[in-house]
Order: sequence, then structure tokens, then C-alpha cells
Amino acid sequence: MTGLSPLQQLQAAVAAVPGPDDASLAAVTDRASSVVRPAGAFARLDDVAIWLGGWQRRPDPLVRRPAVVIFGGDHGVAARGVSAYPTEVTAAMAGAIAGGVATSSVLADANGAILTFVDVGIGEPTNDFTVEDAMSPERFAASWNAGRDAIAELDTDLLILGELGIGNTTAAAAVAAGLYGGSARDWVGRGTGVDDEGLERKRQTVDAGLARFANEAPAPLDVLRRVGGTELVAMAGAATEARRRSIPVLLDGFIATAAMATIERAMPGALDHALAGHCSTEPGHRRLLDALGKRPLLDLDLRLGEASGALVALSIVASAAASVTNVATFAEAEVAGPS
Amino acid sequence: MTGLSPLQQLQAAVAAVPGPDDASLAAVTDRASSVVRPAGAFARLDDVAIWLGGWQRRPDPLVRRPAVVIFGGDHGVAARGVSAYPTEVTAAMAGAIAGGVATSSVLADANGAILTFVDVGIGEPTNDFTVEDAMSPERFAASWNAGRDAIAELDTDLLILGELGIGNTTAAAAVAAGLYGGSARDWVGRGTGVDDEGLERKRQTVDAGLARFANEAPAPLDVLRRVGGTELVAMAGAATEARRRSIPVLLDGFIATAAMATIERAMPGALDHALAGHCSTEPGHRRLLDALGKRPLLDLDLRLGEASGALVALSIVASAAASVTNVATFAEAEVAGPS
Repeated sequence: MTGLSPLQQLQAAVAAVPGPDDASLAAVTDRASSVVRPAGAFARLDDVAIWLGGWQRRPDPLVRRPAVVIFGGDHGVAARGVSAYPTEVTAAMAGAIAGGVATSSVLADANGAILTFVDVGIGEPTNDFTVEDAMSPERFAASWNAGRDAIAELDTDLLILGELGIGNTTAAAAVAAGLYGGSARDWVGRGTGVDDEGLERKRQTVDAGLARFANEAPAPLDVLRRVGGTELVAMAGAATEARRRSIPVLLDGFIATAAMATIERAMPGALDHALAGHCSTEPGHRRLLDALGKRPLLDLDLRLGEASGALVALSIVASAAASVTNVATFAEAEVAGPS
Repeated sequence: MTGLSPLQQLQAAVAAVPGPDDASLAAVTDRASSVVRPAGAFARLDDVAIWLGGWQRRPDPLVRRPAVVIFGGDHGVAARGVSAYPTEVTAAMAGAIAGGVATSSVLADANGAILTFVDVGIGEPTNDFTVEDAMSPERFAASWNAGRDAIAELDTDLLILGELGIGNTTAAAAVAAGLYGGSARDWVGRGTGVDDEGLERKRQTVDAGLARFANEAPAPLDVLRRVGGTELVAMAGAATEARRRSIPVLLDGFIATAAMATIERAMPGALDHALAGHCSTEPGHRRLLDALGKRPLLDLDLRLGEASGALVALSIVASAAASVTNVATFAEAEVAGPS
């Protein structure tokens, strides 16, 4: 797909994999209703197992090789004081992740996931989207393709996509507003923990970005290019490649969800291979999940990013799959059913 | 403690371990505020790590040797048609658990927990509590001590207690009503999935049991003896022994919570070493957790028992601990703090 634009890649991926495998869905649904427990007792987790089997295209879904890929980038709007942290923290945290001592690296290790970190623009901030497009079409395509390439050869059966970038809740809020409407007030939260003044600066920044296309209705991927960030674009490209390969994706927080919502808005159903891992305290996240019709597995007031919420949820997906695939049926276990 | 009554054992356990270790609480609290993530971003999980460290009495809590002990027993009230399943299913499911093919065994395996099954009365049902006490003081003490003995030598740093017994949501509802007041309508749910007629039979059964001490105010452990079941008593004895050894406990569903609520009602604070793993759809469970002041980690509409909900939640506790103990501080990672 090297020669295709991001939108063409998305169209090709969804055409190649229009949906989950029907035979696998049916097989997992059937087994879930036959295992030795009362009907419906694990309904919510059975649905997770069915979703997983459908996209893994297996009648016996399991999570054996979970992978997490975290993309890092810097943001021009960070200079506007929208974060509690200086922009240098992006690079420092990238080092902590790669060094195995950040929350995401520790959680990946604790939950058996292989973590890869991909720098898609640390130290090379995007443009300040209040005055010009965050990135050129060329940089957009390069970031997208970096995301795609990180997934193209990855050996995994469940994928988590994460992000790192000081200032990126501001970019995510602008993307979400560009996709779903509303103003900064609807989508901006405190991110890493800005004070009231910082929150006001974030809102003004997002509204200034949105004002730049007040009289247009840019296509979803164009919203991502104009007010997003390179790590958000990379996640969208990575989710598209996961779709092409029918790899199920577990969504992390607000920024990851906003980035990947762009492909759903560009092609309805494009994000059907993704399940919501958690809902964060960032107020825009619940709004986004509602808009996407996705119910999160966890609701633990987390607000870290770096794939961390999805990593905490990972074992729930693994438990759900094992609870269908590895549990005996009433017949196999020779247990009597309801009287 | 061999010569002591259950209540004396409980008093001795709380006297021996009045609370978590203050130095460990302080150390984990301090580290949680120093690790490389924004202040409060993992607050809910930090609190889990602090609780765990306090009861493990370690400044560096981790979950290395989780254990699950499931107790099985049969119930005289099962003959009143309060369950969707025949009473023989208790023994058959005990075989499935021991054979590694039940949901709990699969989840224990998937989440790295060692599972032990203890038969405390399968095939020897308790008395029908609508006409006489469920068990004699002697059987109560023997069941309690069986629970205690299952924990006394167990090598574990996080304990899940589970149950198996056709008819035991009926016993649990009667126990909960006896502890906290209210009628059957407040505490009875559909359990394994009874129909409307079965639900009405459950309610009548529980109300008939409660009517037997309408003019008394039996002590909490006496409520457990008169309308509980042997596996519920064993869980209360096991939780007490866990308290004596300062082993943190992760609570499963309605039946397990009702059983262990008896020790909290007998001695306020006696269940401080227990955290709520999940909230089930059994309506009495949320009411019980509210009464205990415990907020569940998961809310996934599960209603299986057999320790299964707590087993799904287990990795969240492990993730919480690792996210404090194994993540570097800002100083260690040489990352700048908030500007």
C-alpha cells in the first residue's frame, strides 16, 4: 500500500476486512452458551470473547501475544502554556518508557505485553495550530505511514496503541471538536493537571484552532492533520493497519480514542475492531466513547495516557477469552444443566 | 487458637493485627506521589497499592503469590426450589473446579493464582432454615475451623475466598437481611437465574427464615449459623485467619461478601483487610458493598460466584502495586516535574 494516501489506505483496509469472521463469531457465541456456568452469568465478558474471536478470526480466542506500541511526538501549542509540564518532558518520558521504568513499561511487563516505543516527532514540534495547520500533507502521510509500518510485521493477537506528547490533550480536544462539533468547553479537560488559568489557556487555544476552519467542514483525516499531532496521526495509521490485518485493538484514553475516532468518522465501522479498555477522568473521553457507542471495561478515574489504562484492562480481555475457550461445556464436564 | 470459639478467634485476630502497618502505608503513599506520572493520575490505583502495602506490611507491595480458596457446601433450603439447578450440581461443579475446567480454575490459571478447593459439606446439606437453625453450634465451629485451617499455612500475599453451593444466594440474602435489616425483597435476586416463580419462592424462604428470629436480635455470627451455610461460615473463618496473619483479601460476589460481612458486623473494622473486587448484578451485592463502605474495582454485570469476579479483578491489584513499586520516581528517572 506504499503508494496510497492515508484515506486510500483506510478504504483499502476496510474493503479487505469488512468485518469480523462470521463463523468465528458463531462458534464463540455457541461455546459461551454451553460452558459450565449459568446462562448469562458472564454475559458481558462473553461478548468480549465473541468480539475477540471474530476479529482474531478464530473459534478459540485467547490472548497469547499482546503488544503495545506507544508513539511520541511534540506539539507547537505546548508553547502556549497548555500543559503543567515543560515540553522537554516528552523526550525524558520516552527515555523512561524505553528504559522500562515508566508506568506503561511496568504495566506491560506485569501483564505480559511486548512494548515498542516509536518516536514520530519528539523535539520536532508540530506547528502551532492556532496560526497554521499542525502539519503539512507530507508530514501527515509520513506520520501515518510510521504508524502503519510499526504494525505491519508485528506478531500479536491483541494490540494496544498509546501516546506520549506534552500538549496532546489540547490537540485531542481540538480533533474531537472538529469531528463531532461543540466548542472547547465541551472537550477540554485538565490533562496532566493544569490549574484554572492553564485550563482557560487550553480552551482559548482549542477555540482558536477551531476558528481556523469555522466556515469549512474539513474531512475527518484533514481535521487530524490540521489540529492533531504526529503521534495521533501515527495511531490512526496503526489502527488502520491493524484493521487491514484483522488484529483486535484495545483502546486507551482520551487522546488515543480521539486519534482513532478519525478513522471511524472517515468510514463508519472502520473502528469496529476496537474495544474500549477504560474511561478516563478527562471529560471528553466519556463523550467520545458515547459518540462511538463503545462501553469501557474499566472506569477507575485514570488520566495518564501512555497506554496505561488499556494495559490495566488487558487482563480482563484475556480472562474473558479464557473463560470461553478453556472452560468445559456442561456436556464435556458431565454436569447437569438447569432443572 | 484451637480451643477458642469463632467469636474468640475473631477477637484475638483483630487484637493481634489491629490495622495495617503505618510505616508501610506512609512509604507507599510517599512513593506513589513521587513516581514519574502526573500527580493523581493513578489516584484510585495508588490507593489500592497503599492498602496492599499496609496489609502486606511492606513498603514495596507486589502480588507474587496470589491464592484462591473455594469452599463448597450444600443447603437444606435447596429442596424448596430456590435455584435453577438441582443440588447435585454442587458436587459436579466441585469436580469441574478440581479438574481445572470450571471458570474459576481457568481464571486462576490465566491470572497466576494457586487454587485450592475445600469441601465443607457437599452432600451433607445444612438444615432447612425455615424450620430450624441451618446448623448446630458444633457444625458452625467445625466449618469455621475448616476455613481457618485452609488459610493457616497458606503461602500467599493476596487471598481470594470463593464459594460453591446450590441454594447459597438464598442463604446469603437471609444472612444479609439478618445483619443489616430489611426484608427478602431488599436482598433476594435471581441467583443462577431463577424465573419469577423461583424468585417468589426464594423471597418466601428468606422471609420465613427471618421470621424465626423476628423478636430477637441475634449476634452477627449467630445469624450466620442460623440461616447461613457451611461454605459461608468457612469463608468467615478463613477471612478471620487472614486477618490474624495480615493477609490482604480481595472480595468476590454477593455470597462471599455477605459471609465476610458477618465479621465486620461482629467487630467493626474486622474486614478492613478486604477490598471489593467487583460488584455483581445480584441486587443485594451493591447494597452490601455500600453498607460496608467498599467501592468495587470492577462493575461488569457478573453473577457467577466461585471466586470468578475477584479473579478477574486480581490483575488490577497486581497492576496497581507494580505501578508504585516498580515505576521510577522523577528523581530516579531524571525527569523534570511540573513547571
